[in-house]
Amino acid sequence: MDTRVRIGILGLGTVGSGTFRMLEDNLNMITRKAGRQLQVTRIGVRDVLKERDVTVPPSMLTTDLGSIVDDPEIDVVIELIGGIDPAATLVERALRNGKHVVTANKELMAKHGSRLVSLARSLGLDLHYEAAVGGGIPLVQPLKHQLAGNEVLRMMGILNGTTNYILTKMADEGADFANVLKEAQAHGYAESDPTNDVDGFDTMYKIAVLASIAFGQQVPLEGIHREGIRHVTREAMGYADRLGYRIRLLGIVEALPDKRILVRVHPTMIPKAHPLASVNGVYNALWLNGDFVGDLMFSGRGAGANPTASAVMGDLIDICRNLVVEGSGSAIPYGEGDIQTAPIDLLITRYCFRVQVQDRPRALGELATVLGNFGVSLAAMEMRPLPDGFGEMVFLTHPCQESEFQKAMVNLQRLDFITEVHPAIRVEDGRSA
Amino acid sequence: MDTRVRIGILGLGTVGSGTFRMLEDNLNMITRKAGRQLQVTRIGVRDVLKERDVTVPPSMLTTDLGSIVDDPEIDVVIELIGGIDPAATLVERALRNGKHVVTANKELMAKHGSRLVSLARSLGLDLHYEAAVGGGIPLVQPLKHQLAGNEVLRMMGILNGTTNYILTKMADEGADFANVLKEAQAHGYAESDPTNDVDGFDTMYKIAVLASIAFGQQVPLEGIHREGIRHVTREAMGYADRLGYRIRLLGIVEALPDKRILVRVHPTMIPKAHPLASVNGVYNALWLNGDFVGDLMFSGRGAGANPTASAVMGDLIDICRNLVVEGSGSAIPYGEGDIQTAPIDLLITRYCFRVQVQDRPRALGELATVLGNFGVSLAAMEMRPLPDGFGEMVFLTHPCQESEFQKAMVNLQRLDFITEVHPAIRVEDGRSA
Repeated sequence: MDTRVRIGILGLGTVGSGTFRMLEDNLNMITRKAGRQLQVTRIGVRDVLKERDVTVPPSMLTTDLGSIVDDPEIDVVIELIGGIDPAATLVERALRNGKHVVTANKELMAKHGSRLVSLARSLGLDLHYEAAVGGGIPLVQPLKHQLAGNEVLRMMGILNGTTNYILTKMADEGADFANVLKEAQAHGYAESDPTNDVDGFDTMYKIAVLASIAFGQQVPLEGIHREGIRHVTREAMGYADRLGYRIRLLGIVEALPDKRILVRVHPTMIPKAHPLASVNGVYNALWLNGDFVGDLMFSGRGAGANPTASAVMGDLIDICRNLVVEGSGSAIPYGEGDIQTAPIDLLITRYCFRVQVQDRPRALGELATVLGNFGVSLAAMEMRPLPDGFGEMVFLTHPCQESEFQKAMVNLQRLDFITEVHPAIRVEDGRSA
Repeated sequence: MDTRVRIGILGLGTVGSGTFRMLEDNLNMITRKAGRQLQVTRIGVRDVLKERDVTVPPSMLTTDLGSIVDDPEIDVVIELIGGIDPAATLVERALRNGKHVVTANKELMAKHGSRLVSLARSLGLDLHYEAAVGGGIPLVQPLKHQLAGNEVLRMMGILNGTTNYILTKMADEGADFANVLKEAQAHGYAESDPTNDVDGFDTMYKIAVLASIAFGQQVPLEGIHREGIRHVTREAMGYADRLGYRIRLLGIVEALPDKRILVRVHPTMIPKAHPLASVNGVYNALWLNGDFVGDLMFSGRGAGANPTASAVMGDLIDICRNLVVEGSGSAIPYGEGDIQTAPIDLLITRYCFRVQVQDRPRALGELATVLGNFGVSLAAMEMRPLPDGFGEMVFLTHPCQESEFQKAMVNLQRLDFITEVHPAIRVEDGRSA
């Protein structure tokens, strides 16, 4: 009997090439662990003639991706093209054609995860997506399996390497966002259109996938508050540092007492002693608090050809092992429907913000009164003169409610001596729940 | 059809009580994820009448542990008694009686893992042991699954909470080992007989289990170099700090070019910037370098009732899910035979050591000559006078070979002006491979 597992790969970009190379480099070990011979038979690409850094027999390549998911000879489809169109229809077609699927596509899982996992389950197939979040760091499967007995209370993740690289660089070099972004683009660490990264979409998809697993229902993306890092200034880096914090773009999900969850993506000040504050450059990390496991942290390389290939390969080996023991698929479906999310207005947290003022008597008193009217009380402040009779103040608040804080900010802008209110940055103090 | 999964627990100590409580507290969620009703039917204990902090119907308790593993009504046995006798025979009997097994027993897995996993596999049963290493931190299963495609190049773990607590306390308070140990015993953080922890046995079992998974063959314990922390002095803490290091008891395994592995447990100086250096108190962590995944780190609570229960519960839920899809067991057997280990003599690393000398001319020159004769060259040193014409020197070497370094130490002791050579501490610089 021919027990080879035949693999079709959709996409031969960074991750596709890494996956192909990993299969070549570690073939004996992988075959031994998988319990089956693995063979890549076809690869779908946009341009067959393109120069690549892996050597692939040209006969293996096709631009007709549909022909791969329809190929009756193929057992497993690895989807590495990203995005929704045509990935969504291709993955669904692959499943309906009886193929197991491995995908690295966070957007696909964030938007269609529940439906696709249920479909896989109903067909007795595997649908694995470890590579969709955190690159090579095992996050998806440990949440599904080893941590399954916990009520997850809170997760905070650095899930996007590009923004973490930019924020680390800004802090290390006292540089401006725009300059660091340009440099990152020149080095290939950021895309020419950086929106997906710097405006927090990538992080949003990833925290949505993790939250959907942890809370057992799909998290609707429209229920997630999303802010990127464009408004993080060199000045904010400076006061964060002086106050004992670092700024990271975090995806945060927390369970509320009313069973809803609050999911948000925004630049966040975290204390330098918090383990997430030491995650620098392109590294990713997830910090988690569960009711029994307590605090956990996972960190490592969250992107790139090789780390992502590592995650794809783990999924592929598991599919093969499952074929060996003839299990009927290990896709773990979410519960029915979307989970209820709470609006950001209900958030209770601390804020740090900077205002520019005309330096005149009673300015501070009036300002503090406005804050106090909205229940915003102060934990720390610094004030310094600027040239020409102007001054600058930085405030760190005690915990207060988002909706009230935002009203306070609007009202501050109405004070005649305030010339500018810079965007506030939320502060996490690393409390466990 | 009665699809309840009936569970027998061996042991109702710290972890047993935590597991029982977790099943009670999170029963609905666990049942939903497991896809089956879970019911603890019998618990084996030493003393039925003992007061406990969980309320268990007395009729559930028995002192006859054999009757649990022989009970035809029981589907899953959770072994939480620890040690080899009678755990080894009970686990084997449970498997031969067709029961899936979850164990938290590192010693059992380190000594009999290969045999027991193969037995489980041959019987189509699950044998899970996530809780055996790192408490609640997912380590065992991510190594088996998500990281399976990697050649693991190096792992370094802080795997024992008691010793990490002692070392952290010694550093923070400038205290002596003996005093901190006494205090830890008074607080219940250390056993009255602390050998298993402070002499490195516990860490040895755990790194053996992890290395056996990563390298796919059982690691023979006699092939592991083991040193505990008894010889770590307050003075060593001081010079480590001044040189930019912290001291941690690490379990380390590295792949050698000749396919052997070198496995060792000893106090280690690691740079303060290395992520392992920030793992304090009772926390555990594993740092790993794989050929594709690169550097990874996992950290969290490595012991205690609740974190360990979290790991046990993850395993139990996986067994139930496997029952639902009628998989024939997911135990992943090791390869045949023991893996070849290399002796510590072949280690190439850096060392830090302190000597006391009579302060006389040419002392340093003669000392350096002895070191040089064995290929030991110096990267850093400090020297200070002691009262009454004595002096103290601390040396940090460049990388050299263990066998030569140890010969140099023996020869130093023969120099007439040297009054004491304190035990050396090995130094890791966190290089990736």
